[in-house]
Amino acid sequence: MRVLGIDPGLTRCGIGVIEGAVGAPVSMVAVGVIQTATDLALEDRLLELDQEIARWIETYSPDVIAVERVFSQHNVRTVMGTGQAAGIALLQAAKHGIPVAMHTPSEVKAAVTGSGRANKKQVADMVVRLLNLDAAPKPVDSTDALALAICHLWRGSATNKLKSAVAAEKLRIKKLQRS
Amino acid sequence: MRVLGIDPGLTRCGIGVIEGAVGAPVSMVAVGVIQTATDLALEDRLLELDQEIARWIETYSPDVIAVERVFSQHNVRTVMGTGQAAGIALLQAAKHGIPVAMHTPSEVKAAVTGSGRANKKQVADMVVRLLNLDAAPKPVDSTDALALAICHLWRGSATNKLKSAVAAEKLRIKKLQRS
Repeated sequence: MRVLGIDPGLTRCGIGVIEGAVGAPVSMVAVGVIQTATDLALEDRLLELDQEIARWIETYSPDVIAVERVFSQHNVRTVMGTGQAAGIALLQAAKHGIPVAMHTPSEVKAAVTGSGRANKKQVADMVVRLLNLDAAPKPVDSTDALALAICHLWRGSATNKLKSAVAAEKLRIKKLQRS
Repeated sequence: MRVLGIDPGLTRCGIGVIEGAVGAPVSMVAVGVIQTATDLALEDRLLELDQEIARWIETYSPDVIAVERVFSQHNVRTVMGTGQAAGIALLQAAKHGIPVAMHTPSEVKAAVTGSGRANKKQVADMVVRLLNLDAAPKPVDSTDALALAICHLWRGSATNKLKSAVAAEKLRIKKLQRS
């Protein structure tokens, strides 16, 4: 199964693709970061992000997409942009008929390191080990996207099949409605 | 000038189109509300909203789009959905190469009633009077979308021409890059 992980953000959106199965080795297919210029208008940043996420989905054809769940308890200005970036990731998943799930930062930490309170370095070290990399990809947003994808692969195995079936059926109905 | 106003929301997204100029009568072209079912998955609600906003833009070809600015000081759960709905409105404006502006609720109230602290009924009464309607459109989200469009028409007159020129130029460059 191929999982696309997205750590949403306007300034730096981490994105990574892994391939694997529960109980089998996991490998990295691609990793990167989508950046939009801070001096662009908000609507143009959202459009760039939308187009780049679409390009990643079309290039790597993931079976499922995992997006980090955003909370509003942090900085008010930042969280709105992050939430809108997450919304666009969800929108692109729905447009492509690919099932999408959200995981919280502590779910990701727990899945990858065994502790929901692990720090950034512990998460990065485990990502390097699990994916057999030489070093953690930089910036940290891209490593976080890989951790999220691993989390989804391991947590979601039971519900993935159901979600895939539902998404495939929704896409089939949509295509029927269009034709 | 034709203005499309959007009062963003996932459950009820108010949307309205007005036509007019500063110092001339203003009239309503269309008004409505986009609703997405609360039992749908978030990604499917965002997709529905995206498609409906696109349909409104393509049906009414506005010169400019006004979106209500969302603040995070309210209910944390609601504000994220509202912010994501606003993000999709901005995204659709950018996709269509139409200039977009945001106004706060108190800017809208001040523009329409003269007071930034006016209540819902005062705003609705002024919208009815300014657009020469028989009654305020229901639900209130649709009236708010009209108030927002009027606010933009009156506040934005100085900057609208500049924004339109910039948006037209951006669209021209985008088309050149594609071809």
